[in-house]
Parts: sequence; structure tokens; C-alpha cells
Amino acid sequence: MTVTKVNEDLVRERRKCTFDVNELTHFFDGGADITSERRKFEKTVLAIKGINDEIPEDYLSHKDRYENAVRKACLVKENLNKSKLQVALMPEKYEATYVNTILKGLVKDISPFFLHDTMFLVTIWGQMNEEQQAEWMPKAKALKVIGTYAQTELGHGTFIRGLETTATYDPETEEFVLNTPTLTAYKWWPGGLGHTANHCIVVAQLYSQGKHHGLQTFIVQIRDFKTHNPLPGIHVGEIGPKFNFQTANNGFLGFKNYRIPRKNMLMRNAQVLKDGTFVKSKNDKLTYGTLVIGRVNLINDIAINLAAASVIAVRYSAVRHQSKPKPNEPEPQILDYLTQQHKVFINIATSHAFRITGRWLWNTMMGILKDISEGKMEQLPELHAISCCMKAVCSQDSALGVEQCRLACGGHGFMKSSNLPLLYGVTTASITYEGENTVMMLQTARYLMKTWMQVLEGNTALTPTVKYLLNFVNPTDTKWENTPEGIIKGLQAVAAGKIKAAYDTMVKYVTAGNSQEDAWNLASVQLVGASEAHCRVFLCEIFVNEIQRTSKSLSPNLYKVLQQLVELYLVYWALEKKGDILLYSTISKNDIAVLTNRYEELLGLLRPNAVGLVDGYDIRDEVLNSTLGAYDGRVYERLFEDALKSPLNQEQVNSSFHKYTKPFMEKAKL
Amino acid sequence: MTVTKVNEDLVRERRKCTFDVNELTHFFDGGADITSERRKFEKTVLAIKGINDEIPEDYLSHKDRYENAVRKACLVKENLNKSKLQVALMPEKYEATYVNTILKGLVKDISPFFLHDTMFLVTIWGQMNEEQQAEWMPKAKALKVIGTYAQTELGHGTFIRGLETTATYDPETEEFVLNTPTLTAYKWWPGGLGHTANHCIVVAQLYSQGKHHGLQTFIVQIRDFKTHNPLPGIHVGEIGPKFNFQTANNGFLGFKNYRIPRKNMLMRNAQVLKDGTFVKSKNDKLTYGTLVIGRVNLINDIAINLAAASVIAVRYSAVRHQSKPKPNEPEPQILDYLTQQHKVFINIATSHAFRITGRWLWNTMMGILKDISEGKMEQLPELHAISCCMKAVCSQDSALGVEQCRLACGGHGFMKSSNLPLLYGVTTASITYEGENTVMMLQTARYLMKTWMQVLEGNTALTPTVKYLLNFVNPTDTKWENTPEGIIKGLQAVAAGKIKAAYDTMVKYVTAGNSQEDAWNLASVQLVGASEAHCRVFLCEIFVNEIQRTSKSLSPNLYKVLQQLVELYLVYWALEKKGDILLYSTISKNDIAVLTNRYEELLGLLRPNAVGLVDGYDIRDEVLNSTLGAYDGRVYERLFEDALKSPLNQEQVNSSFHKYTKPFMEKAKL
Repeated sequence: MTVTKVNEDLVRERRKCTFDVNELTHFFDGGADITSERRKFEKTVLAIKGINDEIPEDYLSHKDRYENAVRKACLVKENLNKSKLQVALMPEKYEATYVNTILKGLVKDISPFFLHDTMFLVTIWGQMNEEQQAEWMPKAKALKVIGTYAQTELGHGTFIRGLETTATYDPETEEFVLNTPTLTAYKWWPGGLGHTANHCIVVAQLYSQGKHHGLQTFIVQIRDFKTHNPLPGIHVGEIGPKFNFQTANNGFLGFKNYRIPRKNMLMRNAQVLKDGTFVKSKNDKLTYGTLVIGRVNLINDIAINLAAASVIAVRYSAVRHQSKPKPNEPEPQILDYLTQQHKVFINIATSHAFRITGRWLWNTMMGILKDISEGKMEQLPELHAISCCMKAVCSQDSALGVEQCRLACGGHGFMKSSNLPLLYGVTTASITYEGENTVMMLQTARYLMKTWMQVLEGNTALTPTVKYLLNFVNPTDTKWENTPEGIIKGLQAVAAGKIKAAYDTMVKYVTAGNSQEDAWNLASVQLVGASEAHCRVFLCEIFVNEIQRTSKSLSPNLYKVLQQLVELYLVYWALEKKGDILLYSTISKNDIAVLTNRYEELLGLLRPNAVGLVDGYDIRDEVLNSTLGAYDGRVYERLFEDALKSPLNQEQVNSSFHKYTKPFMEKAKL
Repeated sequence: MTVTKVNEDLVRERRKCTFDVNELTHFFDGGADITSERRKFEKTVLAIKGINDEIPEDYLSHKDRYENAVRKACLVKENLNKSKLQVALMPEKYEATYVNTILKGLVKDISPFFLHDTMFLVTIWGQMNEEQQAEWMPKAKALKVIGTYAQTELGHGTFIRGLETTATYDPETEEFVLNTPTLTAYKWWPGGLGHTANHCIVVAQLYSQGKHHGLQTFIVQIRDFKTHNPLPGIHVGEIGPKFNFQTANNGFLGFKNYRIPRKNMLMRNAQVLKDGTFVKSKNDKLTYGTLVIGRVNLINDIAINLAAASVIAVRYSAVRHQSKPKPNEPEPQILDYLTQQHKVFINIATSHAFRITGRWLWNTMMGILKDISEGKMEQLPELHAISCCMKAVCSQDSALGVEQCRLACGGHGFMKSSNLPLLYGVTTASITYEGENTVMMLQTARYLMKTWMQVLEGNTALTPTVKYLLNFVNPTDTKWENTPEGIIKGLQAVAAGKIKAAYDTMVKYVTAGNSQEDAWNLASVQLVGASEAHCRVFLCEIFVNEIQRTSKSLSPNLYKVLQQLVELYLVYWALEKKGDILLYSTISKNDIAVLTNRYEELLGLLRPNAVGLVDGYDIRDEVLNSTLGAYDGRVYERLFEDALKSPLNQEQVNSSFHKYTKPFMEKAKL
């Protein structure tokens, strides 16, 4: 890293910081050991020769960008192999996501190997039996095979039961015959599928002995090892440009009587015997484990996107001066405007809330998945319910938050060189992938409706995440208190109230003669609202409890500022949801005024530590990739330097003038 | 247009429509004559040979895209000249925005001539005196000069008083000397400035006779007519890639002792005489006229973006089938899910609300600008106040609405071929350009605070848009009624309540010893909230009144469905703002349940007409540019056809395999 003079505003801000930034970094990473592991990894990959672009990616054509991304991804893989750096991969370790964050930073978008490194490995880990794992895992880890995960089709996404790809077992040859019976049955979206992968996990409808056995998972070679040509019977290509993910090489895939050996079905759970006998899984739900891992992991991923956006917005706001409210004083830093603090600080709090609840959920999930592997299935429905709404709420909030940070940077946030457009693109993508959010919310709602029926039946043995509902069986307004506990209780009252209201609406529609299914649909906007309210309770509770739990291991100064973030988060959501809280608690106009006042106060309290808080994420410039957010704050210089790299700026006059504009101007008549 | 088979779902939907779609088109366009003028224009430009791309724009490099955009823009201009089609240009006619909509559709992003066609012409029209206009307008219209509007600098945006570019008058030569004294003084952002324009309106700080005379406007030649080389003293180039606007050719511009003749200052208002005497404008505010036009025009522009997004979301939702709520029935159209209707229908209502209030505001503004030109300035502050909050609220709501439509299309909405990513990019840009939204809201708030002080002083002579405040001087809760009038009254109570609360907060902070400026800052989050609430009143009132006013000229069936849209809009906003309405009116829990129920009912009532409603916008496929939204509903076919055009798909194996992946795989060890 070349040493440059750091912007004076940032120097001053850093001097003001009241806590040890390094301690915050360890806290965010999940331990000093992980920080050091991560830094070693960063040092190794950032030192790779040729990893930096000569021409910024955004000037290249779609095809050139892809080729450059493959080049860089291979460079990284090769150097990691050489350096023999031990890198924990997903799903072995929650914190391992830093690897993908850094690689994303290097490729400056999604790597064509991203799905290989995540869902492909996770599925091998989760759905292959031991023998299969022994064959495939080493090859996958060494990238002897390059894989992806093909589930979604052109015509079906989250509703996976509707997938149309078929796998028909042929006992004569002991093979499955894969087919794509319709246009809509084409696999569509898998990252790396277009031109990168030579293998593919395929989810298809299994037919054996003339009977349909539902969805099963297969590992399928799609391209030749040597020539990389698609194998006969395979129709594969890329799906074209997207909002982002330009280098992800998302692809389509069709099969025409394509045969794979019997042992290529992933047989940890269900099996097909040589003669075609189908051996059912002990539990149909077992295959959902992989999807849950994907969803929970995603929470952590987007928490880091939100953190990155906050870094950019805060540092830019410290450097940018604008307007002259006081005629005789210089233009203030825009970070001093309350409206700016309002846009940005909540996102710092949110990234911590997601990181912490995400970690909690990850650890809980790992415990439950272990139980499941031992045949204990009881906790699966609750895990499914909470992971669905968490996936939806966290992705939605993060996308809005990243966008708020972008807009907080004014016009300059619209520059690709700020990196905020990319951060938004990759974050908002998570709203529709790994389970579309509205469908996710309705999955949770189904669990909540079942629970509410139990409550009405007097059942008091509720699972932990919904136990609070027992306190709200009688519809009296909950007594409001302007304290963290009071806010959580108020949010619980809201969730319970909305669950009850949605339930009552369904009953009303059924009573009026609608079918259960139609009543569900007619109440579905309310059901989504109930799920969201339930998720807010979970987020706030876990955030508060976990900060409390770890408080002893933190120095007082850091603990204090984390407490401020927790309180900001709670008060923010109390104010956001005041319409609901007014309906379900005794909160008064005055309480709301007090909360509003406290919110404004908290922004002021956090203000001096704002730069320290975002420095604490410890996102290196080469990973942040932002002209506005770099550590040294040379905002305007970097914007200008970046613009000068444009191929258009390498010549004074563009050829289009002589070719098109001049002839036209000369012909034009006054 | 080649005739293709229309998707059967769409055929059925169109058969169900209860009103005359053509009548809705005339209504939206503003008259049958404008529809016919627009269609003639479309027919002419869409028939131009070579206007369609061989390779979709999104596959090209940044530089190739720019050159292709110039090619197409010149083709259009040339053919329009040839055809002698009379096209009303901004700012002469409100409806003329269709020209830009269609051109945007052809260039598939923002045209490099966009600022020429809008702000350059508008400024000549609004700020040049008659003599100057006679010289420049014909040349500008014929594109003998290609211009842009350079106001924003690297270091200053909405706070234009802070601009640093200087224009110093030299009476010896009767010239202004332009300079860019610092890096942050570089002009930054103007569309077409990079490599397209040869002229430029420049806003700079005027110095004459050793004195500073504030911001003035100049017309400046920056490139040679023949060679297009930047003139000596000019440093010009493009600023690089953005979230969107890739072909807009946004540029930077610096001056080094660059001299322009005295007569190049735009002298409709202020003047500099030969000896350097500065003649003040009759009113400093006069130059703001151009900015107000820009802001009001923008409302119309984004209303059409939102309409386009609605077309795509509704048609796709009619074609897409998903999930199986009833085991024995086929998968329903996703348009039948209430959650989907909830996401999409409000945006149809909103596009009409913005189109109609935008038109009202445009006509009002034109009247006021005429008055102003005759020296009557009284209405300017109110026009400024209402146009500021309208700009902010409409751009924010439209961006959110477009994004909601995109997300309603699931993963496929993430495909660039859906055109939703582009629509979002160009819409969200309007949040920060033409005046950053938070600053705009605070401008309105300043007017509201002044007005509230008048109210407190017992002044009852308030201007029309704020007159309602007189009904809310005493802080008793407004009686709630579940009717359109009741909702508007409730929203008025909210606005008044929030204005009062923000005012009281300021007083509290001043009383506590803060300066006026600091108190303003500390209350600013509340002030923004007050402005928004005020704007909601305006939007709802004008929407209701204007539909009412035009009702007689509409056939009953169309009027009925428009009334449903108006009611949906009102109920939606009552529910969105229930937290505030609960604070400032007598609305009860039961009222809210009734509104919720009515909202769900309205979605059901609008459902059969959904496709008819979006067909009514009459946006041709070649302008909509969407695989998901085309009139024939061949969604999956078009997605696939578009993907196959990818240059990556023109070869089975990409060269990166042999260059990077294969060598790496061969070296990798198990």
C-alpha cells in the first residue's frame, strides 16, 4: 500500500474516538484469532502479482469482464494452493465468509467460482453419503472438478415442487436419464453454469419403476475435462447481463436423454437401489438442511455488505463539507447534519444486529443439524420458520440500508467508483434468491398460525422463539415503558396482535364461505406483516441479549458505544413501528415524543465515534474498492484519478464525432 | 412489428377488461390529439433504418456503448429533420416529455444529447434576453451547436452558492475570464459534457470591478466546431461509469484563464455593462425559474418510468404461474396472489397520481412564471416550496415503486433484459439530481415554519397549498371518518401536527440555548417528516379533485376504475401513515381494520382490469424494451432468445478455459 496523506478531517475524527478500534475489529470478527487469520489471508491474496486490474472492470465488455474474472479467480486459487494457507471453508466455520468477501472485493463482483465455493461444497457436505463424499469432496476442494448448484428453472423458483426436469431410472444400464421436457424446465440462474463449471448438482423429479418419487439431487458432469466442450445431450450457456453479478456467469442448462450412473444420485437420505427400488428418506425434510444453511449464511454475507456501505457513507460524510448554515463559519462536514446521521448510523447498528443474530442462528442451526443427523427432528420446523423470516427481513433491511448509504453520498454515490452501486446490486439480489422473500415470510406465517391455534387450544408448551405469545392471549393493551425491555415487550405485543389479527381475518374469510386456501390468500398481506413483526422481536431480543452476554469480555468504553448502538436500534424500530405499537400497547403521544428526543440524542452521542465505528469493520481499501470510502479520505482526488482511466478519456476527440455528429451538424439547417 | 401469437393468459385478461383501453390512453396522454401526435412520432422514429441494435447494448464495452448511442441519437435527429415532423419541445409543452421517453427507449439509456434537449434549451428560453435568444435558439434547435448545462461541481451540488468556478470581467477586452481555482471547482456530472457537447451553459461566481456579484450564467464554447478538439484553456472529459446513465456521457470541465465575450453572459435578468458595471436583477430569485421547470418536469418523467415498471410487473404476473395452493388445480397466475397485487397495483395508482398532480403543477407553474416575467413575484415562494417537496416525494416514491415492481418479478426482474434494472437506475438518479431530496424537503420545511409562525400570529391570509393549516390551530384530535374526504382531513391533521411538533422542537432547542441554526439542524429529521406529510396532503387532494373535475368527460366505466385507483391510493396512504393518524385524529382500531379490509377489497376489484390498466399506458414494445413486459407475453421465449445473443454464447468454450482454468486444474493436487 502506498502511503498517502490522510485527509485532515479523518485524522481529527480518529483522534476523537473513545474506544480501541482494534478491539471492535476482534468483536466483529468473532475473536482476535479470526482477525489475525483473516489478515493473513488478505495479505496473501492481495500480494498476488497481476491481481489488480490495469483498466477498471466497468469499462470492459461483458465478455472481457468474464474472462478477466476467471483469470483473477484462478490466480487466487493457484496462489492459495501454493501458499498452503489453511482456509476454513463454508460450511465448516461461520466466520469463513470473510474469504468470500475478500474474493468478491478482488473480482469486483461475484466470482464465477462463487457457487462452487458455497452451495456446491455445502451440498456435497450435506447430502452425499460417506462413500460419495470421499470421492467428490477432495476433487471439489482442489478444483479438479468445478461445480455449481442447479435447482431453479426458467419457470420455477422458490416453489421447488414445481420443477420440471426429470431423472428417470433405467435399471437395464443402472443409469438415470435426465431430460428437460419443456422450455420452462431449463435450469436458469446457477452461477458459473454458463461457461465455467464442468459439473453440476442437479435437482430433478425422480421417476423409477414407473412411479414418481419427488425431487432428488444428482451430481452431473456437463463438460469434458480436457476440451471443456459440453457433453452430448447437454445444452448449456449463459443467461446474459443482469442488474449485477456480471461476472457470476449465471447459466442455463437443458438435458436431452442425458445419462448418468446410478451412484451419481446423492444418497445420504433417499436412495435408488440397483433394481430401481426407491428407498425413502427417513424424513422428507432432511434435504432442506442445505437450503437452511444457504439462508443463514446469507444473513452474515449481507451484514458485511451493509457494513461496507456504512464505511463509505461515514468516511465520505466526514470529508464532504456542504452548505453554510452560519454565514461566518466554514461549511460543516455533512456528518454533522442530523438528517445525515439519521440516514447512516442506523445502518451501523443494523450490521452489528445482523452479524450477531446471524452468528447466534448459525450456531443454533449447527446444533439442530447435528441433532437431525442423529434422527432428532423436533426442532426443524422452528429452525425453518425463524430462518425463513430472518432471511427475508435481513435481506430487505440490508438492501434498503445499502441504498440509504448510497443516497447519503448524493450524486457521487451514483458513481460506480464509489462501489455503492455494486454493493446494492449484490445485496438486493438476496431478496429474490435462496427463497423469494414473500414466500419466505408466508412460510414463517404458516408456523405462526399453527402456533396461534395451539395457544387458543390452551397449549402452553411452545417452542422458544414463539413462547412470548403466551403473554398476549388476552387482548388487553400492553403496558408501555420507554426502556429496552419495554420496547421489546411492545414489539412482542405488536407481533402477537398482528398474528391474532391475521388469524381472525382468515377465520372471517372461511366463515364467509371461502376455502382455506383462498382465505389464506386473502389474508396474506396481513400474514406477511405478522411474520415481519415476529422477526423484529427475534432480532431485537437476540441483539440485546448477546451484547449483554458478551459485555464482560469487553472493555467499558467499547461496551458503552455498543450499548448505544443497541439502544439506537431499539428506539429506531419502536419509532418505525409506532403505528402498530399505538394499536397494541398503552404508548402515549408523550412517550413517542420522548423516544423521538432520545433518538436524536443517541445520534449526537454516536457522532464522535462514527469514523471509529466504521474503521472497526477493518475492511481494507482493496476489498472496499471505493473512491469515496478509502481509509485516507482522498475522495475528490480518487474520483478524478478514476475518471481519467476511462478509455474514452485516452483521446481528445471520440471517433463518433467524425462518423456521426459532424456530418449531421453540417447537414442541419437553421 | 412481427405478429406473434399472444400468450393465452393475456388474451383472456384483455377480454375481461371493463373499459375502453384507448380512452384510458387518451386520458393518460392528456387528450386524443396528443395520443395521435405521439403515435405519429413513434411510427416515424421506430421506422428508422439502423435504429435497432445488432448486439444488445449491455454486451458492449463502455466506449462502444457511447459510440453506439451517438450513432442512434444522430440517426433520430437526422430523420426527424427530414420528416419535418413538428415536435413540441420542452418547455413549450408539458406533454412533450413523450419525445424523451421514446428516445430513451431507443438509446436504451440516457441519450448523450439529453441535456441539450432539456436544460440547455430551457435555459436559453428562460435566461437569455431576446437578442441572445434570437442568436442561440435556432442554432440550438437545429443542433448547429450541441450544448449542456454545467452547474454542479465536484465539491458542490445542491448548495449552489458554494460553487467555486469564477468568471472575472475584464473591461479592457470586454471579456469574462473563466477559472477553475481548485480540484473541487471542476464541473462534474453534466450529461453530454464529456465528448459530445461543443457548448455549455456555465454557472459561475461573477467578479467585476473588484467586487463579487454572486452566481451568473454564461454560454461557453468548449470545443472547436470543425475538429471537436477542446479549445485552449479547456480541460474536459468524461467522469466514468455510473449506476446507470452509461451513455449519458456525463463529464468534467475545468477552465484556465478561458476568455468569453461579454455578450455570452445570459442577460435576461442581471447584466454586466461594457465598463464592468453590474446591473442587478430585479429579483435574485428570477434565475430559479429554470430550476423549478427542471424539477416539475422531472415528476412527469418519473411517473412514466413508474408506469413502464407497472406494465412489466403486471404482464409478467399474468403470464407467470407458480405454486399449487390447491392440490387438484393448476398453478395460479401470480397476479392472483394478494401479496402480488399489493406490490404492484399501488404503483399503477401512483403513476396516475404523479402524472395528474405533475400536470396540474406544470400548468400552475407556467401561469406563475408568466406573472413573474411581468414582475409579479408574490407566488414564487409557494411555487418553490411545493415544487421542492413534490420533487423529493415523487422521486423517492417512484424509485421505491419501480424497485417493488422489479422485485415482484422475482429473479427474472434482475435480468437486464427485463429492463427493470435500467428503469430503477434512471429513476433513483432523480433522488439526488435537480436538488438532493433532503435539501429539497428542508426548503419546503422553511416555508412551512414561516407559515406556522404566521398562523401563530393569527394571520389568516395563507397561500392556497397551506390554507388547511388554519383548521388545525387548536391541538384537538381531528374527528376521523373512513371516507376520501375523511382521509384527506386526517392527512391534513397529520401534516399540521408534524409541522407544529417540529416547530415546538426548534423552540425547545433555542430555549435550551442553541442558536437558530443549530436548533434547525437538531429538529431537521422532524422537519423533513413535516414536509413529507404536507406533500402527501397536496398529492391526495389534487389527485382526488382532478379526477373529479374530469369525470364528466369520461365514460362511466373508465371513471369507475379511475375512482378505484384514487381510493386505493388514499387508503394505502392512510394505512401507511396510521402511526401518525393515530396520533393526530380519533381514528380507532376498528377504523383501521375497516380500512385494511377495504384495501384488500379494492385489490380484488382492480384485479380483472389490471392488464387493461397497464395496456392503457400504450407503451410500445420498442420503447418498453422488456422481455418480461412485451405485449404478447412471450416471456420465457424472449428471455431465452435474448440470452442466446450473448457474445459468450457464440462459442461453445470460452478462451479463458484454455488460458486460465485448465492449466490451473492440471496443476491442482488432490
